[in-house]
Amino acid sequence: MGRRRDPPRRHAGRARARAQRVRQRPAARPAQAGLPDVSHVSTAADHDRAAAPAAPPLPPPRGPAPAEATRERLLQATHELLTERGGGNVSVSEICERANANVAMVKYCFGNKDGLMLALITRITDSFRTEFEHLAEQKLDWREKLARHLRAVVRNYMRYPYINRLLMDQLRQADEHANRMVSDSFVVPMAEFHRTLLTEAEQSGAVHRHIDPVLFFFSVVGMCEFVFTAQPWLTYGFGAALDDDLVERYADHVSELVLASIGTPSGDGNRSTE
Amino acid sequence: MGRRRDPPRRHAGRARARAQRVRQRPAARPAQAGLPDVSHVSTAADHDRAAAPAAPPLPPPRGPAPAEATRERLLQATHELLTERGGGNVSVSEICERANANVAMVKYCFGNKDGLMLALITRITDSFRTEFEHLAEQKLDWREKLARHLRAVVRNYMRYPYINRLLMDQLRQADEHANRMVSDSFVVPMAEFHRTLLTEAEQSGAVHRHIDPVLFFFSVVGMCEFVFTAQPWLTYGFGAALDDDLVERYADHVSELVLASIGTPSGDGNRSTE
Repeated sequence: MGRRRDPPRRHAGRARARAQRVRQRPAARPAQAGLPDVSHVSTAADHDRAAAPAAPPLPPPRGPAPAEATRERLLQATHELLTERGGGNVSVSEICERANANVAMVKYCFGNKDGLMLALITRITDSFRTEFEHLAEQKLDWREKLARHLRAVVRNYMRYPYINRLLMDQLRQADEHANRMVSDSFVVPMAEFHRTLLTEAEQSGAVHRHIDPVLFFFSVVGMCEFVFTAQPWLTYGFGAALDDDLVERYADHVSELVLASIGTPSGDGNRSTE
Repeated sequence: MGRRRDPPRRHAGRARARAQRVRQRPAARPAQAGLPDVSHVSTAADHDRAAAPAAPPLPPPRGPAPAEATRERLLQATHELLTERGGGNVSVSEICERANANVAMVKYCFGNKDGLMLALITRITDSFRTEFEHLAEQKLDWREKLARHLRAVVRNYMRYPYINRLLMDQLRQADEHANRMVSDSFVVPMAEFHRTLLTEAEQSGAVHRHIDPVLFFFSVVGMCEFVFTAQPWLTYGFGAALDDDLVERYADHVSELVLASIGTPSGDGNRSTE
């Protein structure tokens, strides 16, 4: 399609409302290929491990330094295997072989395989949150922010081809702890970001009706994810492939549909020009 | 909410493009409570059974009358059990006990449990198609048709609380036969219905950009289904219940968002007044 992609955004975390869950480490780990670097942001296991705000002189309640490195290798290996298989099943033994780790380390670092998967999911959804938090701070019109955000949501499903399946599995299992973790990681903050943009749109006079930000969250995320969820219908119903070209067209479509609904479309201004 | 629901629409099928798959039966079976009466429309098992257009004097290739009745009882029992359990697992033995049928009849009528589930899915998605085919024929403005259609899509997920889960299972399994059956049953016809409405909108001058009907299909169905798929986020993220009130507000929200995007909103005219 020749359109430029947004560059990956990796930014320092902000404590703010989540301060009690962020445990500052002495030095950020270098980012490993592919997996988003949100080492400054808590993950599920961090949350379980860090019962209180860190007091630097004390060692962490669990997980000495070698376990931290193994933990990261296990996440990276799971990320690689799921990417290679487009979200298909991977076993704990495959993950441990790839990570060069003992299977007992999965239990030690994450409790079990579900805990490992939840840590990977929130690592990625934390990076989604970091992305729109950064966008929120830019000196841009609400239209431009919303257009860039919607494109980013669509592209993120392509960038992490297994994330939709993991999220769907978790929704299906309806596990309270896991769904609360994901809600805290990006669902509620994203609806808050939408609320801010919708308020700006209302105040600018672009939209003459009140749009509920929670309903808006579900409708726009549903738009963005469904072409990935329903890929077999795309294949067998329409004979189309979910390739980069279609994903870019879909990102444009979603962005234009929503922007045209909320305010006067701003033409080329809708398109990211980073 | 006090808003009137659309009455259930049960209309005679039209042969048209699907003529080769529709087998006219001498007399329609009476509708059983809850399960949509689309006895005039082929189901998956009919499709397998009817290799050629029916020649009335010949008995069906498989399934004499008693088997037809058992087949219907098995579908009805599955429908009831899934409704009672909100889409949770039901076993073949539970289905057969409820249907007062021998377990061997599942194999005889549907091949296996997957075949039974596919027959139930397409029974319901055929009724969705019948609904929007009927709407397409009404003497109504494209805006009114689209508004009613979007509300109906949202409400249908509530009316058949297990259908989304069955469709998601099928998408996840990515089985070609099943996904082709569902695509034929409602995916491709619905995108064609959207194409007709979008063409009317473009010709009326209400919309000044071309909207791809296939991308539109995925985006609007995604909007409609996601609040059902992501119900745990609604519960644990926002503390809200997916009750009739929220579903009606969501149906309004989706309808208004899409209608405002495509053309000038027609105010109260958006609301179904049937």
